[in-house]
Amino acid sequence: MDQELQTRILSAVDDAFDDEIAFLSELTAHPSTRGQEQGAQDFMAGALTERGYEVDRWQIEVEKIRHLPGFSPVIGDYEDAVNVVGSHRSASRKGRSLILNGHIDVVPAGPLDMWDRPPFEPHVDDGWLYGRGAGDMKAGLVSNLFALDALRSIGLAPAADVFFQSVVEEECTGNGALACLERGYTAEAALIPEPFEEKLVSAQLGVIWAQVHLKGLPTHVAYAGSGANAIEAAIPLIAALHGLEERWNAPGCRHSEYGHVHHPINLNIGKIQGGDWASSVPAWCVFDMRIAIYPGQDIEAAKAEIVDTIMEAARSNAFLKHSLPEIVWHGFMAEGYALADDRSETAAAAIGSLDAAHVAVNGSALDRLAITATTDARFFGLYADTPALVYGPRAEAIHGFNERVELESIRRITQSTALFIADWCGLETI
Amino acid sequence: MDQELQTRILSAVDDAFDDEIAFLSELTAHPSTRGQEQGAQDFMAGALTERGYEVDRWQIEVEKIRHLPGFSPVIGDYEDAVNVVGSHRSASRKGRSLILNGHIDVVPAGPLDMWDRPPFEPHVDDGWLYGRGAGDMKAGLVSNLFALDALRSIGLAPAADVFFQSVVEEECTGNGALACLERGYTAEAALIPEPFEEKLVSAQLGVIWAQVHLKGLPTHVAYAGSGANAIEAAIPLIAALHGLEERWNAPGCRHSEYGHVHHPINLNIGKIQGGDWASSVPAWCVFDMRIAIYPGQDIEAAKAEIVDTIMEAARSNAFLKHSLPEIVWHGFMAEGYALADDRSETAAAAIGSLDAAHVAVNGSALDRLAITATTDARFFGLYADTPALVYGPRAEAIHGFNERVELESIRRITQSTALFIADWCGLETI
Repeated sequence: MDQELQTRILSAVDDAFDDEIAFLSELTAHPSTRGQEQGAQDFMAGALTERGYEVDRWQIEVEKIRHLPGFSPVIGDYEDAVNVVGSHRSASRKGRSLILNGHIDVVPAGPLDMWDRPPFEPHVDDGWLYGRGAGDMKAGLVSNLFALDALRSIGLAPAADVFFQSVVEEECTGNGALACLERGYTAEAALIPEPFEEKLVSAQLGVIWAQVHLKGLPTHVAYAGSGANAIEAAIPLIAALHGLEERWNAPGCRHSEYGHVHHPINLNIGKIQGGDWASSVPAWCVFDMRIAIYPGQDIEAAKAEIVDTIMEAARSNAFLKHSLPEIVWHGFMAEGYALADDRSETAAAAIGSLDAAHVAVNGSALDRLAITATTDARFFGLYADTPALVYGPRAEAIHGFNERVELESIRRITQSTALFIADWCGLETI
Repeated sequence: MDQELQTRILSAVDDAFDDEIAFLSELTAHPSTRGQEQGAQDFMAGALTERGYEVDRWQIEVEKIRHLPGFSPVIGDYEDAVNVVGSHRSASRKGRSLILNGHIDVVPAGPLDMWDRPPFEPHVDDGWLYGRGAGDMKAGLVSNLFALDALRSIGLAPAADVFFQSVVEEECTGNGALACLERGYTAEAALIPEPFEEKLVSAQLGVIWAQVHLKGLPTHVAYAGSGANAIEAAIPLIAALHGLEERWNAPGCRHSEYGHVHHPINLNIGKIQGGDWASSVPAWCVFDMRIAIYPGQDIEAAKAEIVDTIMEAARSNAFLKHSLPEIVWHGFMAEGYALADDRSETAAAAIGSLDAAHVAVNGSALDRLAITATTDARFFGLYADTPALVYGPRAEAIHGFNERVELESIRRITQSTALFIADWCGLETI
């Protein structure tokens, strides 16, 4: 790319940067937790329409995606699950097409008293924007939009089709991204600016969610015997699951990208609820677990190991052996994905293009990172033969309190993204 | 008591027994869990009014009882907490006065699918009446009422004041019984037909409820470190509390009435709730515990031991030591009470009278039982110098599923109660 064009693009991002942060603040103020994404999606659809993109907005239909690889089981319907895609249709179509993907859903804020300021009243302090979802990943969504804006502001547009996706369900199933695939949105590469420190994600883990239901033998606590308390019955099962976690973390089990990663496989007991009266031995307890798997690890085999682990622990317990737990699979049933394993020319070209864009903005090489979470990248990489580049800004305390994203990092990512689009898709005049 | 009168009283109970069970079924159909007692109290107040008792019905006011010994802390107000007392005022007042006490509140039913039939649709099968609260303790309440009815049906009434009490809050604080004391209802003895196998309760334990609040260090589970999961942080605290339970069960710690009781002190983790997302390290967890104490065991010292146990475990934990749990006391703060320790002449006389009534009905001696639960008896015994006789029918699965009470047992208790009233209060013609 010629130096003068590059400079014009970078300046165009700078010129709109205040607007970009104002837009991000407004988007972050929408409390788009699961089932509540509509306001934020309205806002995104409005912004896309205003800019002249062809806007497609549809409700996910479970029946249409249930049979597809990568589908994660869900409980309930998807009445509130609406995806938004804005399409740029190139006049010349001389370049390579691109998906710019991001998710609109955010995880729950947790107890409000643990936030210094309300999670959905975003504010800027000392170079960081604070708010639930600001980093994960509304900054990325906004960066995608403003990268395209920057090109447009200097009279240019991608010389290939570009699909801007604002999807739901990333935080629990990925079925939003899957529904985009099902609807026919494919391209030669995908970029997902998830907040991983301005590094290129070389691999991501898979994630399995399970809900474990335990029954107890309820009675007045005056006659409480051992082992029939459904809440306490969860304790040895959790211990056994930590045993599985340690086995999966053993060096021999690891995917090559995770050889030197500290404790890549994390078990999380993320939710628990049980009992209804302090003086009644609780008759029931339900806990929600999340565990990771490596790229290439068979998901059915992993599920079977989880089941075996839970049932073996249950059968060692005097009470549980007669009242085995029930395991409900809902939410993530996600395979791992390693961009590093994609040996295709397309992948090499896309990575090379992003490397160059990053160097142009930062003056230093683009680092790789094997992450211990999942992203929607797996749908593009595993099920649509599309290299998916996960590359986004620096954020902190995602899923925690006082989540924040660094403003200058957003600027750099938006600039790299604009340069990458220009190079990957080529440019045409508007 | 002359044999002929005795036979007439027993027959009078028999004659109304079908009505008694029908009345109990109707009362059990009222789902009088905490805060929902109004319908059942309406029903009781109606039955008392119909019979010509002077009915007193009032809302408990926390401010009036907060300073009294035996008060248990509560969260929220008592807007829905209504006591009902029906008074019989004797014309002759030549006998000894009596309180007939029972509680209208029942514990939650738990998951409905664990009941063979709906908990608030009582039904009789093979000599047992099934339903939540049928045993604990609506059968006892009804027995009190029909014992008085039996006397009336043969033209007699107690020759002393009798206060029939239908109280709330027995299952969580006892503040319903305490409010009756505060309102001025006192008598020379009290009878509480709690469902303890037709035995006389010689001692009852105290009960302490505590709610333990834990905070975690939330983050995306991809970065889950050890020890910052608020749910898992509860596990070592629960283990430490079981240690305390074992220490209190040691032979040297026991009140004499519990020397041969198997494991009298029970810890119960009755409720737990924590976290809100499977893939977020949970930031909070709250569990509710119940533990018992012996008669004579100092309640403030016991609370201090509970606090020490929890805090010592917390300080041994890498994360918790910087984020100590918060302990909220709400619900039971109940001392133990031993009728067996009451050496007064009144107690001896009341016990003797009940012994004789039981023998007359059953032909065998009245057994004693040290129970591992609490009852409202403590208010009368400890704070009003009134011997409180706990003596009621045989029930099963109280606080469990398919709770039931034995019909013939109700008949016998009603008969013994009628004879006891006749002897203790004396009789006058209506």
